[in-house]
Amino acid sequence: MTATEVTGQELTERVLVEVGRLVRRGMLDAIPDGEPHTWLYRLVRAYPSRPGKAIRPSLCLATCRAFGGTDDDVLPVAVAIEMLHNAFLIHDDVADGSRLRRGRPTLVAEHGDALALNAGDALAVLANQVLRRHCRSLDDRLADRVYAEFDTMALRTLEGQATELGWRRDNVVDLAAEDYLDLIMHKTCWYTTIHPLRVGAVVGSRGGADLRPMVRFGFHLGAAFQIRDDVLNLVGDEAVYGKERDGDLYEGKRTLMLIHLMGHVRGRDRTTVAAYLEAGREGRSEEMVAEIRHLMEVHGSIRFASDYGAGIASAALDAFDDAFSSVPPSSDTEFIRSLVPYMIGRDL
Amino acid sequence: MTATEVTGQELTERVLVEVGRLVRRGMLDAIPDGEPHTWLYRLVRAYPSRPGKAIRPSLCLATCRAFGGTDDDVLPVAVAIEMLHNAFLIHDDVADGSRLRRGRPTLVAEHGDALALNAGDALAVLANQVLRRHCRSLDDRLADRVYAEFDTMALRTLEGQATELGWRRDNVVDLAAEDYLDLIMHKTCWYTTIHPLRVGAVVGSRGGADLRPMVRFGFHLGAAFQIRDDVLNLVGDEAVYGKERDGDLYEGKRTLMLIHLMGHVRGRDRTTVAAYLEAGREGRSEEMVAEIRHLMEVHGSIRFASDYGAGIASAALDAFDDAFSSVPPSSDTEFIRSLVPYMIGRDL
Repeated sequence: MTATEVTGQELTERVLVEVGRLVRRGMLDAIPDGEPHTWLYRLVRAYPSRPGKAIRPSLCLATCRAFGGTDDDVLPVAVAIEMLHNAFLIHDDVADGSRLRRGRPTLVAEHGDALALNAGDALAVLANQVLRRHCRSLDDRLADRVYAEFDTMALRTLEGQATELGWRRDNVVDLAAEDYLDLIMHKTCWYTTIHPLRVGAVVGSRGGADLRPMVRFGFHLGAAFQIRDDVLNLVGDEAVYGKERDGDLYEGKRTLMLIHLMGHVRGRDRTTVAAYLEAGREGRSEEMVAEIRHLMEVHGSIRFASDYGAGIASAALDAFDDAFSSVPPSSDTEFIRSLVPYMIGRDL
Repeated sequence: MTATEVTGQELTERVLVEVGRLVRRGMLDAIPDGEPHTWLYRLVRAYPSRPGKAIRPSLCLATCRAFGGTDDDVLPVAVAIEMLHNAFLIHDDVADGSRLRRGRPTLVAEHGDALALNAGDALAVLANQVLRRHCRSLDDRLADRVYAEFDTMALRTLEGQATELGWRRDNVVDLAAEDYLDLIMHKTCWYTTIHPLRVGAVVGSRGGADLRPMVRFGFHLGAAFQIRDDVLNLVGDEAVYGKERDGDLYEGKRTLMLIHLMGHVRGRDRTTVAAYLEAGREGRSEEMVAEIRHLMEVHGSIRFASDYGAGIASAALDAFDDAFSSVPPSSDTEFIRSLVPYMIGRDL
């Protein structure tokens, strides 16, 4: 590792930690401290209190600054993004029946479906409130653009989530890598990278920036992120990673590894994979999951996904140059660029 | 029944049907027709396509007109209210595991928890979009007040929902009628009556109306509605009512009838009620539910609740006079007043 790379990584991590702290404070300040505490507001505070990676708000803040804006122009927007992200996480955990989030029990594990679902709804309402209050300070046309970005982002995310759930429920198996990329474009990239980039640029430039190249950069950056996330679910250290390892395998989630495997198995292995796919979550035993993981190793599916992620990351660097060609280099653009290697190298 | 009462009831039903049709069209126009259709947008359209009572949008429109506004001033607000209501219904059905809604299978029954939850999220996003687009046409100060009304409404509703779920989950039993009224003030009245009244008045009067008396009227009107709803769940005709009869009993919902019963049983009956309360939804057999319903009849709990509802309705008429004293009588004020007897007389 060269000196520059070390510096890059240190910069990335320092920014993420700093923004994480700032945004966490912003989120908790925006959550009422009233009643019912035990059944609602304690739950609403739970995920925002747990340190997350803070990729989304960091990307939004840095992009706004890169395009000439200040932290004050955009901080509440970044807070709203992170709050919506947390609301999505609560509902995802309900949908998937997940047990672990950021190293601690999920809300659904602690409080059941109904209370967790309701807390997620409240967090989404509060995110909107933060956004609206801030948009009063923007001129009307700019505020409209910010709102439109949020609406698009929320719908793309929910569309992606629906497709992923639908694939699992209806046991859709004729899937190729392109289908996976189209899925994560909706489910992950829009709200993780594209939206923070676009909304940061639109606020920073007071509406002047060309947002189209942000879609290509955000797509590649977000895809690198999601592919790494899927790989970590198989090979990560649960204590660092903070979610249940193999959770995706139990859920039958159509990851790049699973799609690769489905396309490569023959004979008896094909029957094993088909039986695994047909079994619902409840029907997937520890042995079955271990067997699928073993087949993924044998058929090089995990290696394939990691390589694919590295390729996407290269494309992201290209797209970065295009998206930020109109602004001067700064520690902000350096940070944004440094997220590319961070996405594929991270352990949590 | 006198001639005036017949006219009143006819007026009420005619307005509800007309507004229902108008608002249904508005909701469906606001829902994208794109992909994924099978897993998202078909689900999002389901409840808005089924004719509901349309109490909330009708109240909002009539109040706006009573305070000097036009349909154009407020129709999208009424559409947004009804869309949020439908989003709440989807999530309520997930939380309660309900099987029947407006006479047809619930989304959760047809598509499972995860897809239904996700569709409810999308409907809430679209409701916000409708609201925001309309608020552009209002002056900024008025738009801010409308948004603030929506935020308050959504949070009060989620607080109430959390409390009700919490009571059931933690088997809270030391409850009196006042606790029930406080619960439904949050869970039902705010979004069913208080909010449509307040937001209608604020838009109709361009911010000039005194909204405080709307809380008292809305509370009594909404409480009359909810008490009737709870009674209908026990005595209603399922084909007309459109939900599973006795659903509340299976869920252990703390209705006025159940609270009355808990306060009146002694000896062996007390043990029966305690066993019913301690059993979770899964543990409540048909026999157990039949026994509780029988005890409610024996102890006059259903009669008690109906009488209580009638008393609340009387108070609502008083509060109506106060809330609408500043505006001239019209077919709109007549319609609003007619909702009081409608709430306690309705069969669906």
